[in-house]
Amino acid sequence: MADTIEESNVSYDELMDLENEFEDVETEIIRKQYEMSKPLYAKRAELVSQIKTFWPLVFEAAPMDIDEYIQPSDSALLLSSLKSLSVTRFELDADPAKGDPRSFAIRFEFDENDHFEDKVLEKKFWWRASKDGFRGYVSEPVEIRWKAGKDLTDGLLSLAKAVYDEQKGKPRPAASGNAKDKKKEKEPLTDKQKALKEKIDQTGMGGVSFFAWFGYIGEYITAEESREALAEEAEERRKRKAGEAVPKKDDEDEDMEDAEDSDDEDDDDDLDIFPAGDAVAMAIADDLWPNAIKYFVQAQEQDILSEIDEEFDDEDDEDDEEEEAPKRKKQKA
Amino acid sequence: MADTIEESNVSYDELMDLENEFEDVETEIIRKQYEMSKPLYAKRAELVSQIKTFWPLVFEAAPMDIDEYIQPSDSALLLSSLKSLSVTRFELDADPAKGDPRSFAIRFEFDENDHFEDKVLEKKFWWRASKDGFRGYVSEPVEIRWKAGKDLTDGLLSLAKAVYDEQKGKPRPAASGNAKDKKKEKEPLTDKQKALKEKIDQTGMGGVSFFAWFGYIGEYITAEESREALAEEAEERRKRKAGEAVPKKDDEDEDMEDAEDSDDEDDDDDLDIFPAGDAVAMAIADDLWPNAIKYFVQAQEQDILSEIDEEFDDEDDEDDEEEEAPKRKKQKA
Repeated sequence: MADTIEESNVSYDELMDLENEFEDVETEIIRKQYEMSKPLYAKRAELVSQIKTFWPLVFEAAPMDIDEYIQPSDSALLLSSLKSLSVTRFELDADPAKGDPRSFAIRFEFDENDHFEDKVLEKKFWWRASKDGFRGYVSEPVEIRWKAGKDLTDGLLSLAKAVYDEQKGKPRPAASGNAKDKKKEKEPLTDKQKALKEKIDQTGMGGVSFFAWFGYIGEYITAEESREALAEEAEERRKRKAGEAVPKKDDEDEDMEDAEDSDDEDDDDDLDIFPAGDAVAMAIADDLWPNAIKYFVQAQEQDILSEIDEEFDDEDDEDDEEEEAPKRKKQKA
Repeated sequence: MADTIEESNVSYDELMDLENEFEDVETEIIRKQYEMSKPLYAKRAELVSQIKTFWPLVFEAAPMDIDEYIQPSDSALLLSSLKSLSVTRFELDADPAKGDPRSFAIRFEFDENDHFEDKVLEKKFWWRASKDGFRGYVSEPVEIRWKAGKDLTDGLLSLAKAVYDEQKGKPRPAASGNAKDKKKEKEPLTDKQKALKEKIDQTGMGGVSFFAWFGYIGEYITAEESREALAEEAEERRKRKAGEAVPKKDDEDEDMEDAEDSDDEDDDDDLDIFPAGDAVAMAIADDLWPNAIKYFVQAQEQDILSEIDEEFDDEDDEDDEEEEAPKRKKQKA
């Protein structure tokens, strides 16, 4: 038996083709699950719409991979005005047979609030493939109509949107799929890009508002490029399966070097105001949303626990708590 | 609209019943996924059996929630002798119609090695429900036939097994389902339990071997208790759905207090030599196993990266690397 893959008769292509078959099953499973749980989500929406604190408390109990991006001012806004959340598989809804079950939209509904005019903020995530091997979620910046002086992103989001609009129409050299384009000379930054980069550098992304998440872009990949990339790949898989020769693309040899070169990719990330946007979106869609009842119950328990702590700690300055406490149900005296 | 659940017309029971319906869908989805991916897993097993380093490298690249429990000596053993890993849904295999798709077994195959005689170590995780509200994975300690002086758990595992065997036959007061039993007086520890507790306290669980994971128990819940608990619950759900009265159990009022009382549960954990055993098992079954190819490729990339680093760092003491390096494929000169 061979020690390593290089010495064995197994090729990376074989492993990758198999991985793609696993992914096909996974995609089919998402489709089935969406279908099967739709009536339950509708029932849940109806039930929890009767509890004003439901979604704010779910966010209060959000797991670390979401919570770490929620600043105190974001949290205050969510607590006071988040009315509902929903996740839909919009490509599947539009075309149950051919739509990609992986694409999803996250929709926030808000009450009247101090920070912005919008009642609904919805962000879409398209699952896309590029010809140079990227697979993942891309999105578009969503504008927020901030009230004067109340922009939690301090202009970052609207700058990101302006840059996106400017870039969107331009042909992307990477889309041609030739390996040499991967080493393309860098185009000079536009004025808007420069301004955005400066703003990002100034801000220091550690304390940036959760609402900057609405600015996540990922990569610029059109639906058309994605369709073509997937069709090419499917054709290669078919050929390999049939034992036909598949012309090797230049960049395939580089698969193993990509990790080394991956700094290149960071160019796009440099101009993304929320580079972890896809990870946060997946955490919301695949965890917070399906497990919302669990998180709500958890938040209730913590609430009561902290109330007990407060009662215990602050026996002599009860006034501080008075405004909040009466809303909560008392457990044993 | 009500601010809180207590003021609303929604009851916890309604939320929990709905949560159970979600869980039913989830379980059905696991069943479908297992069916659909079975041929792919067989194909993968056949492919990767030709690459000796496959599973060791997958463990090398394991995510933090597994990796944090792998000590350097565990890692050396896995690298040198882990031959294969597999995850099966054994209750489903035994009874496709009625078996619980959530129960799973993790099977490790080993080459001849310095530490133990076993060629196969398999640990089963049963998804069980108890009458006092526990839902989750329970297991039994798996013995390892250590070679003399080579026990990586330093006796901890065999002690855990001895305690388990002693306790297994005893009737569990918690199984009666009466709320008052939750406040049961503690039984005194047996001699074996005392010895185990002492050993655990001495060891300090921070640096304990990954192989202690084979000792995870969780809770003592029989298949029979679990069946009864689930049947009771299903009957209550049915009644609530039909609008019939459901006699309230004493302990239901305590739902919200449980968080406060949860220290009680830690009694069992005190005698578990690997309290996070269920979480690690789920990480293996739901992440490492399905994504093994991804982790393997990741490990290969890191390997090459660290090789490049080594070449770069250690240009003047190449001898150190010579023994290992020739096995690996060189990327560009």
